[in-house]
Amino acid sequence: MKIDFSRAVSLLKENDNFLILTHANADGDTLGGGFALLLALRGLGKKAKLINNDPIPEKYRFLIAESDDVPEESGFVVSVDVADKVLLGKEINEKFGSKVSLAIDHHSTNKLFAKETYLEGDSASVCEIVYLIIKELGVKIDGEIATRLYTGCSTDTGCFRYSNVTPRTHRIAAELIEFGARHGEVNVRMFETKKPGFLKLQSLCLASLELYFEGKVSVIVVTQKMLSDCSCGEEDCDAIVALSRQIEGVRAGITFKEKKDGSFKVSVRTHEGLDAAAFCSAFGGGGHARAAGCQFECSLEEAKKAVLDEMKKYF
Amino acid sequence: MKIDFSRAVSLLKENDNFLILTHANADGDTLGGGFALLLALRGLGKKAKLINNDPIPEKYRFLIAESDDVPEESGFVVSVDVADKVLLGKEINEKFGSKVSLAIDHHSTNKLFAKETYLEGDSASVCEIVYLIIKELGVKIDGEIATRLYTGCSTDTGCFRYSNVTPRTHRIAAELIEFGARHGEVNVRMFETKKPGFLKLQSLCLASLELYFEGKVSVIVVTQKMLSDCSCGEEDCDAIVALSRQIEGVRAGITFKEKKDGSFKVSVRTHEGLDAAAFCSAFGGGGHARAAGCQFECSLEEAKKAVLDEMKKYF
Repeated sequence: MKIDFSRAVSLLKENDNFLILTHANADGDTLGGGFALLLALRGLGKKAKLINNDPIPEKYRFLIAESDDVPEESGFVVSVDVADKVLLGKEINEKFGSKVSLAIDHHSTNKLFAKETYLEGDSASVCEIVYLIIKELGVKIDGEIATRLYTGCSTDTGCFRYSNVTPRTHRIAAELIEFGARHGEVNVRMFETKKPGFLKLQSLCLASLELYFEGKVSVIVVTQKMLSDCSCGEEDCDAIVALSRQIEGVRAGITFKEKKDGSFKVSVRTHEGLDAAAFCSAFGGGGHARAAGCQFECSLEEAKKAVLDEMKKYF
Repeated sequence: MKIDFSRAVSLLKENDNFLILTHANADGDTLGGGFALLLALRGLGKKAKLINNDPIPEKYRFLIAESDDVPEESGFVVSVDVADKVLLGKEINEKFGSKVSLAIDHHSTNKLFAKETYLEGDSASVCEIVYLIIKELGVKIDGEIATRLYTGCSTDTGCFRYSNVTPRTHRIAAELIEFGARHGEVNVRMFETKKPGFLKLQSLCLASLELYFEGKVSVIVVTQKMLSDCSCGEEDCDAIVALSRQIEGVRAGITFKEKKDGSFKVSVRTHEGLDAAAFCSAFGGGGHARAAGCQFECSLEEAKKAVLDEMKKYF
């Protein structure tokens, strides 16, 4: 069931012991929003614990904040930035997928899997929503909370670069900097620090680049071997995915990322006029208008063929 | 002579025929601010003409707005984003270098070459200043003016990424988007569109990369031959310069760009703790704390040696 802003705030006010869930393959927005909410709730004298499916990648470890000891059976479960319970990750979905009391999200494709969902489909990041909720809760926002929220605002917009940015996004960023967000440091970590191995990965990926539909669709493949050859991990793929759309003339960039079990995650990035979420929904995936994803259990060649066949409908 | 905000506004109100100058090797900030000011002055029923030294690069041509026919002898000369008259470029400096009545600038190294200078050394871009001046002039800001000002705000901050960004930067961006700035389109043009040739240039530059001082200083060389081999121009170097600082562990990125006459322009980009403007001032150059430049008339090897010798003082 969808709820309004004040109901979401009330639910957080009324409860005292929280379990906060992020999505699997956690990024800056789900972790920034999750840990900011945790700090805010603790600031109100409540107990909160953040639980996620995978080890947190090195580049996001600065977002981690101390959790309380909240019993997993009795906590009030809140998910942050999770559009569907399967996106919690296998283990967390099995444990908590049907026990989420409140989902706070900005994916218009949210499956309303939680008991109550506060959804702003046109918010550039979940951190914008968490910021407004935290303010309404009357929490004193310090540099620790502000830095985490800023990280989500920045990472989910490519540092204010994408068309999902609204005037509200910029005004919230201004306020977060005033509250002490370490914006320069965050952006250096997120965008301005390239490992030599990443630069090698980028070269390999560009060598694998294929263009289809008269250069309007790019296809990049990232295999586990490429990642290990370059000492890179899953978290390095985001910048490769972004690159797929940055090539002149490309309207849709498609990245096939091989997972450890040999299956493929497909990330789609589009420019105006091509709905990435609608495209990925043909394969049971989802996301946003300009950035979406889906999964394939078949071989790379089969996945590629399916994706390019579907793309024919758009060109 | 330095003047205050209201004096700068008065000078623009009192005069009727303007010649607006940008710096040579024009970028998004000088052109965005210059053409926005031109449109604003024309909106007040005044005449204005923008004059610059070089052909405007393809990627910035969308910023061009129609000039009036203002006689070069009698116009009130305003420079935008110009720290020193030699930066006007040879021809424009000869003609107008000693005739600038008002300089609007954000370089703390401004040489006060103009009759009167309105300087905000801590403004992230000159477009922030021009925006505030235009508002004070009472001009109705439309999408055309807003898009040009947004371009400067975005390009001079690496799209809100650098530590020069202040809360004011974000608030002005919010207002410009509300005034109709086509922010998504600007950022796609400025940051999200990479020519295949540029990607090739990037590979060549990374192949030329040298690290000094235990990896804390990177040196990248861009020659005219590399540019022509990759069908790239001067305007493609900005992203290479940005890359020089993005390598993990690097505190100062130095790019040597060969000019058409065989001399070298050196661009320095630093992280906190190393003042790029102070460093470049040793060679008669200047700029900002994190981004500065200087010129060398000698050979590449001599220029490199001089720069690395100077760098010893910092490590």
